Amino acid sequence: MKILLVGASGTLGTAVRAALADRHEVVTASRQGADLPLDMTDPDSVAAMYARLGPVDAVACTAGAVPLRPLAEMSRADLEAGIGHKLLGQVELVRQGAAHVAPGGSFTLITSVLSHDPIPGSTAAALVSGALKAFVVAAAIELRQRINAVSPSVFTTTLAGGTDRFPGARGVAPADVARAYVKSIEGAQTGRVYRVEEPF
Amino acid sequence: MKILLVGASGTLGTAVRAALADRHEVVTASRQGADLPLDMTDPDSVAAMYARLGPVDAVACTAGAVPLRPLAEMSRADLEAGIGHKLLGQVELVRQGAAHVAPGGSFTLITSVLSHDPIPGSTAAALVSGALKAFVVAAAIELRQRINAVSPSVFTTTLAGGTDRFPGARGVAPADVARAYVKSIEGAQTGRVYRVEEPF
Repeated sequence: MKILLVGASGTLGTAVRAALADRHEVVTASRQGADLPLDMTDPDSVAAMYARLGPVDAVACTAGAVPLRPLAEMSRADLEAGIGHKLLGQVELVRQGAAHVAPGGSFTLITSVLSHDPIPGSTAAALVSGALKAFVVAAAIELRQRINAVSPSVFTTTLAGGTDRFPGARGVAPADVARAYVKSIEGAQTGRVYRVEEPF
Repeated sequence: MKILLVGASGTLGTAVRAALADRHEVVTASRQGADLPLDMTDPDSVAAMYARLGPVDAVACTAGAVPLRPLAEMSRADLEAGIGHKLLGQVELVRQGAAHVAPGGSFTLITSVLSHDPIPGSTAAALVSGALKAFVVAAAIELRQRINAVSPSVFTTTLAGGTDRFPGARGVAPADVARAYVKSIEGAQTGRVYRVEEPF
Protein backbone atom coordinates (compact mmCIF):
# COMPACT_ATOMS: atom_id res chain seq x y z
CA MET A 1 0.00 0.00 0.00
CA LYS A 2 0.96 3.62 -0.45
CA ILE A 3 0.39 5.30 2.91
CA LEU A 4 0.46 8.99 3.80
CA LEU A 5 1.80 9.46 7.33
CA VAL A 6 1.28 12.90 8.84
CA GLY A 7 3.52 13.70 11.80
CA ALA A 8 6.12 11.00 11.10
CA SER A 9 8.93 12.66 13.05
CA GLY A 10 7.22 12.66 16.46
CA THR A 11 7.45 9.91 19.08
CA LEU A 12 4.33 8.15 17.83
CA GLY A 13 4.96 8.91 14.16
CA THR A 14 8.39 7.29 14.40
CA ALA A 15 6.86 4.16 15.93
CA VAL A 16 4.07 4.00 13.34
CA ARG A 17 6.54 4.43 10.50
CA ALA A 18 8.70 1.63 11.90
CA ALA A 19 5.64 -0.63 12.11
CA LEU A 20 4.68 -0.03 8.46
CA ALA A 21 7.83 0.70 6.48
CA ASP A 22 8.90 -2.87 5.72
CA ARG A 23 5.61 -3.77 4.03
CA HIS A 24 4.39 -0.47 2.57
CA GLU A 25 5.45 2.69 0.78
CA VAL A 26 5.21 5.39 3.46
CA VAL A 27 5.10 9.02 2.29
CA THR A 28 5.49 11.57 5.07
CA ALA A 29 4.01 15.05 5.42
CA SER A 30 4.59 17.69 8.08
CA ARG A 31 5.57 21.33 8.51
CA GLN A 32 9.22 20.54 7.79
CA GLY A 33 11.64 17.69 7.19
CA ALA A 34 9.07 15.44 5.48
CA ASP A 35 8.53 14.23 1.92
CA LEU A 36 5.73 16.76 1.51
CA PRO A 37 5.22 20.10 3.29
CA LEU A 38 1.92 20.34 5.18
CA ASP A 39 0.30 22.82 7.54
CA MET A 40 -2.83 20.97 8.72
CA THR A 41 -4.39 24.20 9.98
CA ASP A 42 -4.52 25.58 6.43
CA PRO A 43 -7.06 23.99 4.06
CA ASP A 44 -5.08 25.28 1.07
CA SER A 45 -1.96 23.54 2.33
CA VAL A 46 -3.93 20.29 2.70
CA ALA A 47 -5.19 20.67 -0.89
CA ALA A 48 -1.67 21.30 -2.23
CA MET A 49 -0.32 18.29 -0.33
CA TYR A 50 -2.99 15.94 -1.73
CA ALA A 51 -2.37 17.28 -5.25
CA ARG A 52 1.36 16.47 -4.98
CA LEU A 53 0.75 13.14 -3.24
CA GLY A 54 -1.44 11.60 -5.96
CA PRO A 55 -3.51 8.47 -5.37
CA VAL A 56 -3.00 6.83 -1.99
CA ASP A 57 -4.42 3.81 -0.15
CA ALA A 58 -4.31 5.05 3.42
CA VAL A 59 -3.92 8.25 5.39
CA ALA A 60 -2.62 7.99 8.96
CA CYS A 61 -2.18 10.99 11.25
CA THR A 62 -0.10 11.04 14.43
CA ALA A 63 0.06 14.85 14.66
CA GLY A 64 -2.10 17.18 16.67
CA ALA A 65 -1.31 19.80 19.26
CA VAL A 66 -3.71 21.07 21.93
CA PRO A 67 -2.68 23.44 24.76
CA LEU A 68 -2.92 22.03 28.31
CA ARG A 69 -4.17 24.90 30.48
CA PRO A 70 -6.53 25.23 33.45
CA LEU A 71 -10.05 26.15 32.38
CA ALA A 72 -9.90 29.27 34.57
CA GLU A 73 -6.86 30.50 32.63
CA MET A 74 -7.82 29.25 29.19
CA SER A 75 -8.42 31.94 26.61
CA ARG A 76 -10.72 31.70 23.67
CA ALA A 77 -7.55 31.70 21.52
CA ASP A 78 -6.17 28.63 23.36
CA LEU A 79 -9.38 26.78 22.61
CA GLU A 80 -9.45 27.83 18.99
CA ALA A 81 -5.80 26.81 18.55
CA GLY A 82 -6.47 23.27 19.71
CA ILE A 83 -9.60 23.03 17.62
CA GLY A 84 -7.86 24.44 14.56
CA HIS A 85 -4.91 22.06 14.71
CA LYS A 86 -5.69 18.61 16.09
CA LEU A 87 -9.44 18.67 15.38
CA LEU A 88 -10.06 20.64 12.18
CA GLY A 89 -6.63 19.72 10.80
CA GLN A 90 -7.49 16.03 10.92
CA VAL A 91 -11.09 16.58 9.77
CA GLU A 92 -9.65 18.49 6.79
CA LEU A 93 -7.39 15.52 5.94
CA VAL A 94 -10.58 13.42 5.73
CA ARG A 95 -12.90 15.97 4.15
CA GLN A 96 -10.48 16.62 1.29
CA GLY A 97 -8.94 13.16 1.34
CA ALA A 98 -12.25 11.47 0.54
CA ALA A 99 -11.59 12.32 -3.13
CA HIS A 100 -7.94 11.17 -3.09
CA VAL A 101 -7.89 7.95 -1.06
CA ALA A 102 -8.81 4.75 -2.89
CA PRO A 103 -12.30 3.37 -2.17
CA GLY A 104 -11.85 0.72 0.50
CA GLY A 105 -8.72 2.54 1.69
CA SER A 106 -8.58 4.03 5.13
CA PHE A 107 -8.13 7.03 7.37
CA THR A 108 -6.61 6.60 10.83
CA LEU A 109 -6.76 9.60 13.16
CA ILE A 110 -5.15 10.31 16.53
CA THR A 111 -7.26 11.18 19.56
CA SER A 112 -6.61 10.50 23.26
CA VAL A 113 -7.77 9.04 26.51
CA LEU A 114 -8.53 12.52 27.86
CA SER A 115 -12.09 12.60 26.52
CA HIS A 116 -13.13 10.06 29.14
CA ASP A 117 -10.20 10.13 31.58
CA PRO A 118 -9.37 13.83 32.04
CA ILE A 119 -6.64 15.55 34.06
CA PRO A 120 -6.66 19.15 35.33
CA GLY A 121 -5.98 21.47 32.41
CA SER A 122 -7.30 19.08 29.79
CA THR A 123 -10.66 20.60 28.88
CA ALA A 124 -9.49 21.70 25.42
CA ALA A 125 -7.74 18.39 24.75
CA ALA A 126 -10.74 16.43 26.01
CA LEU A 127 -13.11 18.43 23.82
CA VAL A 128 -10.94 17.80 20.76
CA SER A 129 -10.58 14.08 21.51
CA GLY A 130 -14.31 13.64 22.08
CA ALA A 131 -15.05 15.48 18.86
CA LEU A 132 -12.70 13.27 16.85
CA LYS A 133 -14.13 10.05 18.28
CA ALA A 134 -17.66 11.07 17.36
CA PHE A 135 -16.56 12.33 13.95
CA VAL A 136 -15.01 8.96 13.12
CA VAL A 137 -18.18 7.09 14.10
CA ALA A 138 -20.35 9.41 12.01
CA ALA A 139 -18.01 9.68 9.00
CA ALA A 140 -17.77 5.87 8.76
CA ILE A 141 -21.37 5.65 7.53
CA GLU A 142 -20.76 8.18 4.75
CA LEU A 143 -17.27 7.57 3.39
CA ARG A 144 -16.30 5.14 0.63
CA GLN A 145 -13.16 4.57 2.71
CA ARG A 146 -12.81 3.09 6.17
CA ILE A 147 -12.05 5.40 9.10
CA ASN A 148 -10.89 4.67 12.65
CA ALA A 149 -9.29 6.56 15.52
CA VAL A 150 -6.49 5.55 17.86
CA SER A 151 -6.97 6.73 21.43
CA PRO A 152 -3.84 6.22 23.53
CA SER A 153 -3.21 6.85 27.19
CA VAL A 154 -0.07 8.77 28.19
CA PHE A 155 3.11 7.32 26.64
CA THR A 156 5.68 5.53 28.78
CA THR A 157 8.25 7.77 27.13
CA THR A 158 6.41 10.87 28.40
CA LEU A 159 6.31 9.46 31.93
CA ALA A 160 10.00 8.57 31.72
CA GLY A 161 10.70 12.20 30.79
CA GLY A 162 9.37 13.20 34.22
CA THR A 163 5.86 14.59 34.61
CA ASP A 164 3.52 14.66 37.60
CA ARG A 165 0.41 15.29 35.51
CA PHE A 166 -0.67 11.64 35.41
CA PRO A 167 -0.68 10.24 38.97
CA GLY A 168 -0.94 6.46 39.06
CA ALA A 169 -0.34 6.04 35.34
CA ARG A 170 1.91 3.28 34.04
CA GLY A 171 1.61 4.52 30.46
CA VAL A 172 1.49 2.74 27.12
CA ALA A 173 4.45 2.07 24.85
CA PRO A 174 4.47 3.99 21.54
CA ALA A 175 5.11 0.65 19.78
CA ASP A 176 1.82 -0.69 21.18
CA VAL A 177 -0.02 2.41 19.99
CA ALA A 178 1.57 1.86 16.57
CA ARG A 179 0.01 -1.62 16.48
CA ALA A 180 -3.41 0.04 16.61
CA TYR A 181 -2.46 1.94 13.43
CA VAL A 182 -1.48 -1.34 11.78
CA LYS A 183 -4.82 -2.84 12.84
CA SER A 184 -6.71 0.11 11.37
CA ILE A 185 -4.73 0.28 8.12
CA GLU A 186 -4.37 -3.44 7.36
CA GLY A 187 -7.62 -4.63 8.98
CA ALA A 188 -11.19 -4.34 7.75
CA GLN A 189 -12.97 -2.43 10.51
CA THR A 190 -14.46 1.05 10.25
CA GLY A 191 -16.00 3.56 12.64
CA ARG A 192 -13.96 2.18 15.53
CA VAL A 193 -12.03 3.91 18.28
CA TYR A 194 -9.06 1.78 19.37
CA ARG A 195 -8.39 2.56 23.01
CA VAL A 196 -4.76 1.79 23.83
CA GLU A 197 -4.86 2.06 27.61
CA GLU A 198 -3.26 0.44 30.61
CA PRO A 199 -5.34 -2.44 31.99
CA PHE A 200 -4.49 -0.55 35.27
CA MET B 1 -32.83 29.19 42.65
CA LYS B 2 -32.17 31.85 40.05
CA ILE B 3 -31.65 30.01 36.76
CA LEU B 4 -30.44 31.34 33.42
CA LEU B 5 -32.14 29.49 30.57
CA VAL B 6 -30.61 29.98 27.13
CA GLY B 7 -32.88 29.09 24.23
CA ALA B 8 -36.13 29.19 26.20
CA SER B 9 -38.38 29.73 23.18
CA GLY B 10 -37.51 26.50 21.35
CA THR B 11 -39.30 23.16 21.70
CA LEU B 12 -36.95 21.92 24.40
CA GLY B 13 -36.51 25.30 26.05
CA THR B 14 -40.27 25.63 26.46
CA ALA B 15 -40.42 22.21 28.11
CA VAL B 16 -37.48 22.96 30.41
CA ARG B 17 -38.99 26.29 31.43
CA ALA B 18 -42.31 24.59 32.21
CA ALA B 19 -40.48 22.03 34.37
CA LEU B 20 -38.68 24.68 36.40
CA ALA B 21 -40.84 27.80 36.53
CA ASP B 22 -43.06 26.88 39.48
CA ARG B 23 -40.12 26.38 41.86
CA HIS B 24 -37.46 28.75 40.54
CA GLU B 25 -36.83 32.20 39.10
CA VAL B 26 -36.06 31.55 35.42
CA VAL B 27 -34.31 34.31 33.48
CA THR B 28 -34.19 33.76 29.72
CA ALA B 29 -31.55 34.75 27.17
CA SER B 30 -31.55 34.42 23.41
CA ARG B 31 -31.11 36.43 20.22
CA GLN B 32 -34.54 37.98 20.56
CA GLY B 33 -37.71 37.87 22.62
CA ALA B 34 -35.99 36.92 25.87
CA ASP B 35 -35.28 38.72 29.15
CA LEU B 36 -31.68 39.28 28.06
CA PRO B 37 -30.24 39.53 24.52
CA LEU B 38 -27.54 36.95 23.78
CA ASP B 39 -25.56 35.87 20.73
CA MET B 40 -23.71 32.78 21.97
CA THR B 41 -21.27 32.94 19.06
CA ASP B 42 -19.93 36.28 20.29
CA PRO B 43 -17.81 36.21 23.48
CA ASP B 44 -18.50 39.92 24.05
CA SER B 45 -22.25 39.26 23.95
CA VAL B 46 -21.83 36.47 26.52
CA ALA B 47 -19.86 38.86 28.75
CA ALA B 48 -22.51 41.58 28.46
CA MET B 49 -25.28 39.09 29.22
CA TYR B 50 -23.55 37.83 32.40
CA ALA B 51 -22.89 41.42 33.52
CA ARG B 52 -26.61 42.25 33.24
CA LEU B 53 -27.72 38.94 34.75
CA GLY B 54 -25.83 39.30 38.04
CA PRO B 55 -25.31 36.35 40.42
CA VAL B 56 -27.06 33.15 39.39
CA ASP B 57 -27.32 29.60 40.74
CA ALA B 58 -27.62 27.64 37.53
CA VAL B 59 -27.10 28.02 33.80
CA ALA B 60 -29.05 25.74 31.48
CA CYS B 61 -28.72 25.80 27.70
CA THR B 62 -31.17 24.26 25.23
CA ALA B 63 -29.87 26.19 22.20
CA GLY B 64 -27.40 25.09 19.60
CA ALA B 65 -27.57 24.88 15.84
CA VAL B 66 -25.41 22.61 13.66
CA PRO B 67 -25.93 22.17 9.91
CA LEU B 68 -26.96 18.67 8.74
CA ARG B 69 -25.13 18.08 5.45
CA PRO B 70 -23.44 15.12 3.77
CA LEU B 71 -19.70 15.01 4.44
CA ALA B 72 -19.04 15.11 0.69
CA GLU B 73 -20.91 18.43 0.42
CA MET B 74 -19.90 19.94 3.72
CA SER B 75 -17.79 23.06 3.47
CA ARG B 76 -15.24 24.24 5.97
CA ALA B 77 -17.68 27.09 6.72
CA ASP B 78 -20.49 24.61 7.58
CA LEU B 79 -18.19 22.92 10.05
CA GLU B 80 -17.02 26.16 11.59
CA ALA B 81 -20.63 27.38 11.92
CA GLY B 82 -21.64 24.34 13.96
CA ILE B 83 -18.52 24.56 16.08
CA GLY B 84 -18.95 28.29 16.63
CA HIS B 85 -22.57 28.07 17.75
CA LYS B 86 -23.48 24.89 19.60
CA LEU B 87 -19.94 23.97 20.72
CA LEU B 88 -18.01 27.15 21.40
CA GLY B 89 -21.19 29.05 22.31
CA GLN B 90 -21.89 26.65 25.15
CA VAL B 91 -18.21 26.39 26.16
CA GLU B 92 -18.18 30.20 26.36
CA LEU B 93 -21.23 30.13 28.69
CA VAL B 94 -19.14 27.92 31.00
CA ARG B 95 -15.75 29.55 30.53
CA GLN B 96 -17.13 33.00 31.41
CA GLY B 97 -19.88 31.71 33.68
CA ALA B 98 -17.42 30.11 36.09
CA ALA B 99 -16.97 33.56 37.65
CA HIS B 100 -20.72 34.36 37.77
CA VAL B 101 -22.40 31.14 38.89
CA ALA B 102 -22.48 30.43 42.62
CA PRO B 103 -20.03 27.78 43.87
CA GLY B 104 -22.00 24.54 44.06
CA GLY B 105 -24.31 25.87 41.35
CA SER B 106 -24.52 24.13 38.01
CA PHE B 107 -24.18 24.24 34.25
CA THR B 108 -26.38 22.02 32.08
CA LEU B 109 -25.51 21.81 28.40
CA ILE B 110 -27.32 20.32 25.43
CA THR B 111 -25.67 17.69 23.27
CA SER B 112 -27.22 14.82 21.29
CA VAL B 113 -27.38 11.13 20.53
CA LEU B 114 -25.59 11.70 17.20
CA SER B 115 -22.11 11.36 18.69
CA HIS B 116 -22.66 7.62 19.12
CA ASP B 117 -25.75 6.99 16.93
CA PRO B 118 -25.12 8.94 13.72
CA ILE B 119 -27.28 9.43 10.63
CA PRO B 120 -26.07 10.41 7.14
CA GLY B 121 -25.21 14.10 7.13
CA SER B 122 -24.47 14.24 10.84
CA THR B 123 -20.67 14.42 10.93
CA ALA B 124 -20.63 18.06 12.09
CA ALA B 125 -23.40 17.48 14.64
CA ALA B 126 -21.69 14.31 15.88
CA LEU B 127 -18.36 16.08 16.23
CA VAL B 128 -19.98 18.89 18.23
CA SER B 129 -21.89 16.49 20.47
CA GLY B 130 -18.84 14.35 21.16
CA ALA B 131 -16.82 17.45 21.97
CA LEU B 132 -19.44 18.70 24.45
CA LYS B 133 -19.69 15.34 26.23
CA ALA B 134 -15.93 15.18 26.72
CA PHE B 135 -15.78 18.85 27.74
CA VAL B 136 -18.35 18.26 30.48
CA VAL B 137 -16.43 15.29 31.86
CA ALA B 138 -13.14 17.25 31.87
CA ALA B 139 -14.56 20.55 33.14
CA ALA B 140 -16.24 18.79 36.09
CA ILE B 141 -12.86 18.17 37.74
CA GLU B 142 -11.86 21.84 37.50
CA LEU B 143 -14.99 23.91 38.14
CA ARG B 144 -16.28 25.07 41.52
CA GLN B 145 -19.72 24.45 40.04
CA ARG B 146 -21.28 21.20 38.87
CA ILE B 147 -21.62 20.54 35.14
CA ASN B 148 -23.65 17.95 33.21
CA ALA B 149 -24.88 17.44 29.66
CA VAL B 150 -28.25 16.26 28.40
CA SER B 151 -28.04 14.01 25.33
CA PRO B 152 -31.45 13.40 23.78
CA SER B 153 -32.47 11.27 20.85
CA VAL B 154 -34.73 12.78 18.18
CA PHE B 155 -37.85 14.40 19.65
CA THR B 156 -41.28 12.84 19.14
CA THR B 157 -42.40 16.30 18.01
CA THR B 158 -39.77 16.28 15.25
CA LEU B 159 -40.90 12.85 14.06
CA ALA B 160 -44.54 13.98 14.16
CA GLY B 161 -43.56 16.88 11.90
CA GLY B 162 -42.63 14.35 9.25
CA THR B 163 -38.99 13.42 8.63
CA ASP B 164 -37.41 10.31 7.12
CA ARG B 165 -33.97 10.99 8.57
CA PHE B 166 -34.44 8.67 11.57
CA PRO B 167 -35.65 5.26 10.34
CA GLY B 168 -36.94 3.07 13.15
CA ALA B 169 -36.92 5.84 15.73
CA ARG B 170 -39.79 6.22 18.19
CA GLY B 171 -38.35 9.46 19.61
CA VAL B 172 -38.29 10.97 23.08
CA ALA B 173 -40.78 13.47 24.45
CA PRO B 174 -39.43 16.97 25.13
CA ALA B 175 -40.97 16.76 28.62
CA ASP B 176 -38.81 13.71 29.36
CA VAL B 177 -35.72 15.53 28.15
CA ALA B 178 -36.71 18.41 30.43
CA ARG B 179 -36.64 16.01 33.40
CA ALA B 180 -32.94 15.46 32.71
CA TYR B 181 -32.44 19.21 33.14
CA VAL B 182 -34.30 19.09 36.45
CA LYS B 183 -32.08 16.19 37.56
CA SER B 184 -28.94 18.12 36.62
CA ILE B 185 -30.04 21.41 38.20
CA GLU B 186 -31.67 20.15 41.40
CA GLY B 187 -29.53 17.01 41.87
CA ALA B 188 -25.97 16.67 43.11
CA GLN B 189 -24.15 14.93 40.27
CA THR B 190 -21.39 16.39 38.13
CA GLY B 191 -19.47 15.35 35.03
CA ARG B 192 -22.41 13.26 33.82
CA VAL B 193 -24.00 12.88 30.42
CA TYR B 194 -27.71 12.10 30.74
CA ARG B 195 -28.73 10.06 27.73
CA VAL B 196 -32.43 10.47 27.08
CA GLU B 197 -32.95 7.73 24.50
CA GLU B 198 -35.61 5.25 23.49
CA PRO B 199 -35.12 1.85 25.17
CA PHE B 200 -35.76 0.75 21.52
